[in-house]
Amino acid sequence: MSADAAQAGVRIVLVQTQHPGNIGSAARALKTMGLHDLLLVDPQGSPAHRDALAMAAGADDVLAGARIVASAAEAVADCAFVAGCTARSRHVSLPGLSPREAAAQLLAQSAHGPVALLFGCERTGLTNAELQLCHAAVHIPANPVYGSLNLAAAVQVLCYEWRVAALERVAAGCGDDTAGARADPPATQAQMEGLFAHLASTLDAIDFHKGRSPATVMRRLRALFQRAQPDARELRILRGILADAQRMARLAGRKVE
Amino acid sequence: MSADAAQAGVRIVLVQTQHPGNIGSAARALKTMGLHDLLLVDPQGSPAHRDALAMAAGADDVLAGARIVASAAEAVADCAFVAGCTARSRHVSLPGLSPREAAAQLLAQSAHGPVALLFGCERTGLTNAELQLCHAAVHIPANPVYGSLNLAAAVQVLCYEWRVAALERVAAGCGDDTAGARADPPATQAQMEGLFAHLASTLDAIDFHKGRSPATVMRRLRALFQRAQPDARELRILRGILADAQRMARLAGRKVE
Repeated sequence: MSADAAQAGVRIVLVQTQHPGNIGSAARALKTMGLHDLLLVDPQGSPAHRDALAMAAGADDVLAGARIVASAAEAVADCAFVAGCTARSRHVSLPGLSPREAAAQLLAQSAHGPVALLFGCERTGLTNAELQLCHAAVHIPANPVYGSLNLAAAVQVLCYEWRVAALERVAAGCGDDTAGARADPPATQAQMEGLFAHLASTLDAIDFHKGRSPATVMRRLRALFQRAQPDARELRILRGILADAQRMARLAGRKVE
Repeated sequence: MSADAAQAGVRIVLVQTQHPGNIGSAARALKTMGLHDLLLVDPQGSPAHRDALAMAAGADDVLAGARIVASAAEAVADCAFVAGCTARSRHVSLPGLSPREAAAQLLAQSAHGPVALLFGCERTGLTNAELQLCHAAVHIPANPVYGSLNLAAAVQVLCYEWRVAALERVAAGCGDDTAGARADPPATQAQMEGLFAHLASTLDAIDFHKGRSPATVMRRLRALFQRAQPDARELRILRGILADAQRMARLAGRKVE
């Protein structure tokens, strides 16, 4: 495997970026690190804005190739592994990774399918709903009293760590070493969303909530199953169990959606 | 030694910076990484320029404290160790370091006196005369066909590597850093066995196996949940779900052990 083959594998997703200049700076950061897959979720400024082009310097090919989608869920639907960049540890119980650890995991998971790094909007970062699409949270170890990295600077640091990890793997001659790989591919994020919807309706059917709010429990269960990274076969087993639990609820005379 | 004591030791020197906005962005990069010692050699734009202030965001204290000198020699006259950032290996016969190696050397040498990172002007980088002031050349491993990092992006990467090295040294000296640990303790193996027994009896109750051997499915589910490493609270949620599924099976008239 060449370094370029490794670099094809990581997607940079910017969610609701406010300033087109930052999209341009991020495109430049990608290209300096040999990356090109830029995906914009509902950007507030166009990648064709003159500020974006000015800040991209010679990376206008990355800007021109940037895809635009409506939601973060759509951006990572086909991904085997997603890491979300956060300014600090949040209330979502995701594994926390340093940029270096995240690069290693993204590189390892890229053997199974597309992998992505998710960056929130400049002012507020990723929402909890966006973090719930992620398998891990990445935290740049910034100054605790001034952790406010510019968006493109954060993109630069993460892309830099990816490139160092990819080059080290090439240097070590590992290639795409699949030793220890699982036989079945990991579930895609879209399949995971299918599991979570099925789980939510099953919890209703078996009267798990008993009038309490389902939000907290679902957030914890999402984090648990994202961490486990089920493969396609494990997902089929889990959905089979849910289907049978719903069948029992139906036989017990409960309404099942 | 605290992280801050280590961070006091590295000086960032920008030589003949052309755009004041880049001085502001660099100041922000320093501050995010806990650094503050910014030294400008004959800048073409003033650090008080409105573009500098705009790009510094909240790092105007770093800008305000930036010292200005006439030559690179003056900027590093008191230094024990100086590393110069170059886009590629130059004709100066200096030891070449990666950003990570440079951070380690700067940190080690900071025990002996001030240490500095030197960055040349945006268009041409460091001159050979300026590189001759350095003990080593640092090269960010960029895309060979597009290695043009923005000045502030290069400053961010080097300051980031410094901070990671400084924090690692603090952690090594101070024992285990527990930041990022989960709030609840992981389930004990005995608790996990309790979960698996409950899961097995629930699968019987909801007629999941339908006459097939339960061994393979239970083996896969054990692997899945062991991988997820549930904490004590997550375990209680999972067992609550199993209890409710069993309750439904009982209401449906099935025998539940």
